[in-house]
Amino acid sequence: MLCMLSCEAAGGDPRQALPAAAALELIHNFSLVHDDIQDGSRFRRGRRAVWDIWGMEHGINVGDGLFAMARLALHRLGGRGVPLPRQQRVTQALDRACLALCEGQYFDMTFEDRLDVDLDQYLWMIRHKTAVLLATAMKMGALVATDDEALIDAHYRFGENLGMAFQIQDDILGTWGDPAVTGKSAATDIRDKKKTLPVVYVLNHPDERTSAWELIDLYSQEGPLNEAAIQAGLSILERAGARAYAEGQAEAYYNLAFESLVKGDMENAAQAHLCELAASLLGRET
Amino acid sequence: MLCMLSCEAAGGDPRQALPAAAALELIHNFSLVHDDIQDGSRFRRGRRAVWDIWGMEHGINVGDGLFAMARLALHRLGGRGVPLPRQQRVTQALDRACLALCEGQYFDMTFEDRLDVDLDQYLWMIRHKTAVLLATAMKMGALVATDDEALIDAHYRFGENLGMAFQIQDDILGTWGDPAVTGKSAATDIRDKKKTLPVVYVLNHPDERTSAWELIDLYSQEGPLNEAAIQAGLSILERAGARAYAEGQAEAYYNLAFESLVKGDMENAAQAHLCELAASLLGRET
Repeated sequence: MLCMLSCEAAGGDPRQALPAAAALELIHNFSLVHDDIQDGSRFRRGRRAVWDIWGMEHGINVGDGLFAMARLALHRLGGRGVPLPRQQRVTQALDRACLALCEGQYFDMTFEDRLDVDLDQYLWMIRHKTAVLLATAMKMGALVATDDEALIDAHYRFGENLGMAFQIQDDILGTWGDPAVTGKSAATDIRDKKKTLPVVYVLNHPDERTSAWELIDLYSQEGPLNEAAIQAGLSILERAGARAYAEGQAEAYYNLAFESLVKGDMENAAQAHLCELAASLLGRET
Repeated sequence: MLCMLSCEAAGGDPRQALPAAAALELIHNFSLVHDDIQDGSRFRRGRRAVWDIWGMEHGINVGDGLFAMARLALHRLGGRGVPLPRQQRVTQALDRACLALCEGQYFDMTFEDRLDVDLDQYLWMIRHKTAVLLATAMKMGALVATDDEALIDAHYRFGENLGMAFQIQDDILGTWGDPAVTGKSAATDIRDKKKTLPVVYVLNHPDERTSAWELIDLYSQEGPLNEAAIQAGLSILERAGARAYAEGQAEAYYNLAFESLVKGDMENAAQAHLCELAASLLGRET
């Protein structure tokens, strides 16, 4: 959706961007199929994960196959009249995003065993794990439509900042989201001792040393936290102002995203739809 | 090596094919890293497998990263003066090979639980799992060098038939290879009840019904075969003429490979090197 709206907003025919959008969807799904194996998550979108049904071995292979199919989808751009040099740039953008995804995934996995994650490392990780793919979706759409580098860059920045806001909001929902709305247990990120932005904030803020030590104590326990520990964690975060901080950060990235798009200096219906889509993504409660 | 020699044999500068050769090497290694996880193989090339050192989670991610890096390597073709339409075809050839690899891997994994694998299914599986990548290596080299479709196709066929011969010979070595030379235990493929060509031959040959039933009996045992069962298996295969059959098939594909190249009707030093390389691959004892 982001890719096709981006193409239209940049003055192109969104149908030309369809193979790029399909490739992005396949890449996203490849990463989820492998991610579920890596996390041992048995469910995805309310259904059993691929590996849980077919086994880890086939799960790896299905992910690899989706990766290969994503690449093959891109070759259909030519059939929709996208000139070869633009196809080439679209392909290159996706290839770079794929490596960034793996880099982000690497840091996300290593953060699990660490209590010394600082803010820069956290932001680097979510940029690679989440924001680059949204940014690339926007860039690919724009690349199909135009050669205007400033406009292409504006679309990339919109997606990148939107992705940062989206991931931070995901952190907030994983901590304070309403189970009735998210469909997950409450505070799963605290239970799993994830290094989310609220946690990274408390661990690193010079005024919150006491809270940081309390949190380190909790997070040094073996295995998932029990209900009492989860409540203790939530009250540490609340007292340290971590929720307000994270909400402020999400808001800041959200505003940056809009500024990026407005800088692109192109007003049309598709751009308005992009803004609506962004607003609905950020207003999401699931 | 195949890719660069193919480029030279087709009249090109092999240095132009280097990014394509690098991409092939990265793809091959990505598939091995994931394969070792899928097989639970703890060793590769005499050293501990990636997943055995870093864990399954990182092993999956390393494979994914190698896949992404392979794609990025291809983008360097432009810097070596390969025109965009040829780059595009090189990329497409590799993308198709990647999907074929996953398809071959799927059948290889499902064959483990089956005793009704017929010859066509076996040949389809090794074509996708092994031969397509060698064929594609040759094709990519030729694509860098020339637009002559007959020559490109001849190179593809050479690699494909060489790959078929190579995999069948791998089956022979896995059954009758000398442990002192292969560096593996004797008859590991029998121990692991693999559906190799000698086994598929016995299971399907109308004149070998008795041998087939004896083999099905052995292969119906739970877990790896013990030494006595391995010896029994070897003598069934020997008696049924399965070794001579497999050797004849490897030879036939090897000859087809040479015929394909000669049909290409281009004689030069690189082509002679290709033939030597092919001969040494097939003469291999490890």
